[in-house]
Amino acid sequence: MKRLTVELEIICIGNELLIGKVLNTNAYWLGGQATNLGVDVKRVTVVQDIVFEIAQVILEVLARKPQFIITTGGLGPTFDDKTLQGIAKALNRNSEVNPKALEMVKEKYIQYAIAKKRPVGELTSAQIKMATLPEKTEPVKNPIGTAPSIRVDIDGTVLFALPGVPSEMEAIFTQSIAPIVKQTVGDVVFCEKSIFVSEIMESTLAPLIDKVMNDNPGIYIKSHPKGEENKPHIEIHLTLRAQSKNQPSEKILKALNELINLIQQTQKNLH
Amino acid sequence: MKRLTVELEIICIGNELLIGKVLNTNAYWLGGQATNLGVDVKRVTVVQDIVFEIAQVILEVLARKPQFIITTGGLGPTFDDKTLQGIAKALNRNSEVNPKALEMVKEKYIQYAIAKKRPVGELTSAQIKMATLPEKTEPVKNPIGTAPSIRVDIDGTVLFALPGVPSEMEAIFTQSIAPIVKQTVGDVVFCEKSIFVSEIMESTLAPLIDKVMNDNPGIYIKSHPKGEENKPHIEIHLTLRAQSKNQPSEKILKALNELINLIQQTQKNLH
Repeated sequence: MKRLTVELEIICIGNELLIGKVLNTNAYWLGGQATNLGVDVKRVTVVQDIVFEIAQVILEVLARKPQFIITTGGLGPTFDDKTLQGIAKALNRNSEVNPKALEMVKEKYIQYAIAKKRPVGELTSAQIKMATLPEKTEPVKNPIGTAPSIRVDIDGTVLFALPGVPSEMEAIFTQSIAPIVKQTVGDVVFCEKSIFVSEIMESTLAPLIDKVMNDNPGIYIKSHPKGEENKPHIEIHLTLRAQSKNQPSEKILKALNELINLIQQTQKNLH
Repeated sequence: MKRLTVELEIICIGNELLIGKVLNTNAYWLGGQATNLGVDVKRVTVVQDIVFEIAQVILEVLARKPQFIITTGGLGPTFDDKTLQGIAKALNRNSEVNPKALEMVKEKYIQYAIAKKRPVGELTSAQIKMATLPEKTEPVKNPIGTAPSIRVDIDGTVLFALPGVPSEMEAIFTQSIAPIVKQTVGDVVFCEKSIFVSEIMESTLAPLIDKVMNDNPGIYIKSHPKGEENKPHIEIHLTLRAQSKNQPSEKILKALNELINLIQQTQKNLH
């Protein structure tokens, strides 16, 4: 039986995301994709390139038993790429050169050598590192870059470790992960609608939003102030995650209409 | 005595950050500011607008005993603003209208009414909500928006709850938090240098980076591939956090020179 809510947690690995060097567009992109597939994205955790810390976060997330975990970053050939070691430590597994992953890495370097008309050399230890996976994990093809992605199944949770380079991460997610996620989610869709309201303060909108949420169970309404309370320009965002047979689009539209009516009455009273 | 490493964890509260609606520029900005103040930013956790989840994350972070926690988001007047309730739940404290916070909120609405030449009304319950704080917390003035920020001291950790609107968050951090953080950090500075390397694969750079890190204890070197392994364009980023009497800038320059020499030798060998 398919559960109604499929949960995902995202773990982003990399000091550069914590020191204000790189904006975390990966979490943003993955969150959007997963949400549109009907997934409930529960948390994003950003953690340093420290094996112990990566392992800790993985164990904490596993304890919350989401159906999916996606990690980004830390799969490359350099010493600061520590995600595979972090996964091995979390799961208390040894790491070993995975023959299938090694084949993937080898194939890439043969292609590179041919493209550069250079002899094909032996793989270096830095290159073999990318194929050194925790035991009982499955490499997933990286159609763009060199480092394979990996899949690990742990007690009902599927963990995918993706590279941090956005183009590689996005290609692997789209090709290899989205279809698996969608199959798990089944017939659940995510619907959203926004309206923008000016000249009414957010605190004045608050009781109207409360009323519409009470009248429309399941619908979540968030206000996003874009201006200031004094010069208000507010986006009101309605969302609903539901099975499509339950007509979520129609439900959102009904709630939106009720909200628009309440706002218009309030505007009349203000003038 | 001042500890050498002052740790910060950032908690960002808001569904919009998880569903791919809003890019988390707040964590990026705060991470950069804190790092430049000499702070070690350990984690960013992004969590949904659910009181129980907010409380859980706060308790988890408190257990790791960072000197500072900064939360962003969830301080406004609408029902989806749940940070204050989350803090109250985590600390098992009642909430009450805080007279100082109420004064701050009142003052804002008086200013708004005067600007609009409208009569000053009584505060609504949505407006009073912004001044309803967990017991034994201190409101911090918001120079731009309406919702006060708050400060809570818990067993050696100082938690600041900031609004999610970037301009408000930035103003409060700069005015009220940065000076406190800097005082705690003391004479520790963060130094960084970058070089860009083309035409050498990241896997070829890996052993050079290992050598420079071994020769220069304390220096952290990360490679950031910008192209592909096959058409490499790589930023190599050296960082060091140290007391200024230990001359971190000089140490970084020494390591950088060693790295540049190693790269030049490798380039010669490739041609």
